[in-house]
Amino acid sequence: MTSECSPRFLASDNTSGMCPEAMEMLLKANHEDDLAYGNDRWTALAADRFREMFDYDCEVFFVFNGTAANSLALSAMGRSYHSVICHELAHIETDECGGPEFFSNGAKLLTSPGANGKLTPEGIEALVTKRSDIHYPKPKVISLTQATEVGTVYSREELLAIRAMADKYDLRLHMDGARFANACVGLNASPAELTWQVGIDALCFSGTKNGLAFGEAILFFNRDLAEDFAYRCKQAGQLASKMRFIAAPWLGLLDNDVWWHNAAHANAMARYLADGLADLPGASLMFPVEANGVFVELPLNAIEALKAKGWTFYTFIGAGGARFVCSWNTSTALLDQLLHDIRAALDA
Amino acid sequence: MTSECSPRFLASDNTSGMCPEAMEMLLKANHEDDLAYGNDRWTALAADRFREMFDYDCEVFFVFNGTAANSLALSAMGRSYHSVICHELAHIETDECGGPEFFSNGAKLLTSPGANGKLTPEGIEALVTKRSDIHYPKPKVISLTQATEVGTVYSREELLAIRAMADKYDLRLHMDGARFANACVGLNASPAELTWQVGIDALCFSGTKNGLAFGEAILFFNRDLAEDFAYRCKQAGQLASKMRFIAAPWLGLLDNDVWWHNAAHANAMARYLADGLADLPGASLMFPVEANGVFVELPLNAIEALKAKGWTFYTFIGAGGARFVCSWNTSTALLDQLLHDIRAALDA
Amino acid sequence: MTSECSPRFLASDNTSGMCPEAMEMLLKANHEDDLAYGNDRWTALAADRFREMFDYDCEVFFVFNGTAANSLALSAMGRSYHSVICHELAHIETDECGGPEFFSNGAKLLTSPGANGKLTPEGIEALVTKRSDIHYPKPKVISLTQATEVGTVYSREELLAIRAMADKYDLRLHMDGARFANACVGLNASPAELTWQVGIDALCFSGTKNGLAFGEAILFFNRDLAEDFAYRCKQAGQLASKMRFIAAPWLGLLDNDVWWHNAAHANAMARYLADGLADLPGASLMFPVEANGVFVELPLNAIEALKAKGWTFYTFIGAGGARFVCSWNTSTALLDQLLHDIRAALDA
Amino acid sequence: MTSECSPRFLASDNTSGMCPEAMEMLLKANHEDDLAYGNDRWTALAADRFREMFDYDCEVFFVFNGTAANSLALSAMGRSYHSVICHELAHIETDECGGPEFFSNGAKLLTSPGANGKLTPEGIEALVTKRSDIHYPKPKVISLTQATEVGTVYSREELLAIRAMADKYDLRLHMDGARFANACVGLNASPAELTWQVGIDALCFSGTKNGLAFGEAILFFNRDLAEDFAYRCKQAGQLASKMRFIAAPWLGLLDNDVWWHNAAHANAMARYLADGLADLPGASLMFPVEANGVFVELPLNAIEALKAKGWTFYTFIGAGGARFVCSWNTSTALLDQLLHDIRAALDA
Repeated sequence: MTSECSPRFLASDNTSGMCPEAMEMLLKANHEDDLAYGNDRWTALAADRFREMFDYDCEVFFVFNGTAANSLALSAMGRSYHSVICHELAHIETDECGGPEFFSNGAKLLTSPGANGKLTPEGIEALVTKRSDIHYPKPKVISLTQATEVGTVYSREELLAIRAMADKYDLRLHMDGARFANACVGLNASPAELTWQVGIDALCFSGTKNGLAFGEAILFFNRDLAEDFAYRCKQAGQLASKMRFIAAPWLGLLDNDVWWHNAAHANAMARYLADGLADLPGASLMFPVEANGVFVELPLNAIEALKAKGWTFYTFIGAGGARFVCSWNTSTALLDQLLHDIRAALDA
Repeated sequence: MTSECSPRFLASDNTSGMCPEAMEMLLKANHEDDLAYGNDRWTALAADRFREMFDYDCEVFFVFNGTAANSLALSAMGRSYHSVICHELAHIETDECGGPEFFSNGAKLLTSPGANGKLTPEGIEALVTKRSDIHYPKPKVISLTQATEVGTVYSREELLAIRAMADKYDLRLHMDGARFANACVGLNASPAELTWQVGIDALCFSGTKNGLAFGEAILFFNRDLAEDFAYRCKQAGQLASKMRFIAAPWLGLLDNDVWWHNAAHANAMARYLADGLADLPGASLMFPVEANGVFVELPLNAIEALKAKGWTFYTFIGAGGARFVCSWNTSTALLDQLLHDIRAALDA
Repeated sequence: MTSECSPRFLASDNTSGMCPEAMEMLLKANHEDDLAYGNDRWTALAADRFREMFDYDCEVFFVFNGTAANSLALSAMGRSYHSVICHELAHIETDECGGPEFFSNGAKLLTSPGANGKLTPEGIEALVTKRSDIHYPKPKVISLTQATEVGTVYSREELLAIRAMADKYDLRLHMDGARFANACVGLNASPAELTWQVGIDALCFSGTKNGLAFGEAILFFNRDLAEDFAYRCKQAGQLASKMRFIAAPWLGLLDNDVWWHNAAHANAMARYLADGLADLPGASLMFPVEANGVFVELPLNAIEALKAKGWTFYTFIGAGGARFVCSWNTSTALLDQLLHDIRAALDA
Repeated sequence: MTSECSPRFLASDNTSGMCPEAMEMLLKANHEDDLAYGNDRWTALAADRFREMFDYDCEVFFVFNGTAANSLALSAMGRSYHSVICHELAHIETDECGGPEFFSNGAKLLTSPGANGKLTPEGIEALVTKRSDIHYPKPKVISLTQATEVGTVYSREELLAIRAMADKYDLRLHMDGARFANACVGLNASPAELTWQVGIDALCFSGTKNGLAFGEAILFFNRDLAEDFAYRCKQAGQLASKMRFIAAPWLGLLDNDVWWHNAAHANAMARYLADGLADLPGASLMFPVEANGVFVELPLNAIEALKAKGWTFYTFIGAGGARFVCSWNTSTALLDQLLHDIRAALDA
């Protein structure tokens, strides 16, 4: 199979498969039978590895996907009559078909604008202080996406400022870490520095986008919020009977910092693409490239031309905006071809 | 690794790993990137294979686990103020931590007794006609488990009689097929003969217990009930972004009737165990062995002795009842050792 | 209108209308406009009156009916994956069409038998200790009905024994007080003696069955459980905009112990009926008459004859069991006529 | 009590009490016991009266309040993964603390702007066609408020245009009729002309704002949507045991067109106030006055001055906007005093 005809999938990092290290562990976990429902040897091991990695005695749970991870964590952080403050572009608001509302049995999301896809302390305060009557669902949680839906990252200072606002109004802080690994790399910061050290109460850490087939980890740094959480997962259809096939591949990512290397590669590829685009008149970057996503404004006919050539990518950020997401296995060869095709489309 | 120290796991068929054919397809699906959310080539293929296998143009959906499969199917078959009739030993009643009630937002399960773990037309009618006032949640669905929770199977005649009762009261018929493959083998019947041909509206077909790591299939023979079901799965956290890692292993089971062979092996092992137990004074079978589960009554001290030797099994069917479940990879060597240990325990 | 043709309604105490004192206050509250959503003068007054009456600084909320009162209280006392222990005849189990499951988004009710409609400490313990795995919804709340669904009452000693069991397993104690007033009278005990003094966490006190048109009071003695409860009521459609029309009639009941006198009359009428039945061969009381309900076993043809004469009553307690409930306005004339008709039916 | 010190409540039409005709019927319904749960003579009568009034054989249900009426109707018109299109100022979006999301178990509201508080066909189409993927909750219902939240009304032509759009995309049409009576009067149109004749599927008709203490009517013109709806009401805590105390007062409104006269008075008072404001420099109407609400922009210090004088009103429509709502019992004396005080505040 030549690179010419390889899949031109840059729509999301979830078009990639499993990375070799994750697959190796999956195969290992299949050597022998083991206990079900997380009582196997792999699950305990993976949870401990997370605690080492975050240097914190957090509670760790594994669920199948991101919809469930975020929705279940949020439902544990508030009740149905509370509200969750998030950015207007937050994935939980725009792309979960009402998942957070379903799992929480009705909690409303209150959205705020903000440059570069980021919530601001002022935006949060505006929503909290807008009303205080009983007809307005009481804000209880702030949900941040790190890295954001537009490929930017919250700095430690920004996170601390949001934590201060959370403290002011007694709010809990949730982090949607669909691309948490890419944020760590982008900020050259440790997992601890970007979570409990800046007051994050719960993190949903995606393995799927980092090289797994399935399986997200939910980490509660605020352990009170994790009370009876295993029951919640069970009831909500998120307790895997053969849990070891989630946990063992996670060990593949956690051992030897594979998660970091996978994210670093993806971020580097995004940078490579962004640098290539910078040379192209007619293409302009829409947001700073700080993780593994590249948003570029292109003429509509160029977008059509690219799609006609089989490139898959999203265009949800307004007319003319194309999103390309790089992954642990994105190659410069693929990006060179993309850049070549974009240049051709712009020249046409 | 000697058979002496191999895992003595007979608690459930979910302690087994992936069968070789499923693993091979998983590895194949990992060769190349593919589209997300079921738009890949494997998912369509697997769905078509199900339609061939059932000889019916049914709607096919894949979800992560059995809790979700049954709960989502049931929530699509009724509304929150309806009730679901099931056997008092039904897994949805006893072992889902309120999952069906959660996904349906409150539907009650109405339970009925019945010999050998099976609902009867009379038992169903008694629940339907018990009351007709508005304070009693209106029965809308019958849920059968095939094979049952005690290792027996519903014959085609029994299924037809239940369907007749369903027709009499305008009820829908759901089949929890956690061990559907074992039932087909046990009855030497085709999937079609045990489902749409006897009026089943929806089947939850477990792959996990047949040799997968994850991934159950929901088949709607009554296609009206599947309207917008993909949205329901998405909202409820059951849409896999890398769906191909569920679909491709399913192909491993469906091609060459691997699913049948896996189930046939498991059933044969159960028969082997049952035959061995027949020779042991002090051990008595509690239910006919018609699929892959063996329920045996043992003295309490024998049960303790077996547990002390590291055998894992459930004892939920009343005091003194032990459940052993065989799987696609259960060996006669393991069962011989179990029989040896049971004999020793009984002799003690 | 002669007593001959007056309504022969003894099916429930909810066939009676408003008592004069409640109506007077409703008319008074209508004299002048007032603020909405409970910010009126009557609501605060009624809440305070409850606190005096119970001699406790409890949290007080008003909702429209009993389904909502019990369901909302229970949903505040646990979460969706918890379970509620109740008697197998509990109204929340048998007559709410899945209401508690709906409001709690899936909490299961675990039922226990028990003589005279009463839960026992042993029955509770059996349900709590039955299993401790994650597939069984964790017991969190005990719900008692006082007076019970069969017209008996829990003594203070029985309540204390149940509280001790609740403490042993860290369970919360809910009291369905649909006929709480009748229980106080039946036991000649104060509201305090039957609630917080014996460790009740929350009480749903019915006004409807005591002489109101609508409007139940929820009292939280465990104030932590009432956190943000007003939001819960609002979201669940239980915040009356013209709240004063619930609160003011409640004042009619609370002032001058009208609630006690209403219940005392109803209880006395039940006693009168029970005494009359004692003289009738062929009629036998099914439960001790300790509040305002009388359950009597009658031949089926007698039951038919009574229904033919226009008497309304329930027969849900098994074949041949008739329930007659007396109210604040039940008359001896009506009961004499009922006794007359029963005697005639038995003689036939 | 002089008019000087009478309540200065113009915040909402729910600060008024019961109108004499409704009270008279309530008293009448209290003369005698009657059957519970809507099996009384009044409930059937009131439902029939609605069918006459609308000249249509619709299904009629009574619930306690507006939150429940709208939320239950919407939950019957779609499922949890569907979405409801409404105006960004719609009461269901801004003032129900997540009620619609709670009752529907997660349906999202998609909001659209629109002049004078009104949805437009274009705005609806934009939301429907925005996306068609499974991550976006499928639009299923359009909810209109008639009269709107800013005191305007949809003309028959506007309603027909919205119905055409609904037909184009297979959407159902819900009308929040919190002030439906005022809209009929404002448009001088019959109930039929504004509902089923323009394709409304379900109407929530508020009695509370028209002179009742409690009790909204839900009318399904699309009878299919009402299937088993009584069970839904029961489960959701909206079945009144003493239903006659909702139904009978409704008869007070429906007989002799009291509902129309009440609304006509309220509208006339709003017109009176608006005319008075027209003469005041510094006060400017924000929306056409087409029903019983008057929105006026005032200097902030004038608003403060009015509040200091004890006037109650809402200011939720942006800074400087005051809402005054007239009711069936609003007097010109009260409005004269208000105008006097506004003039004084503006002069200051």
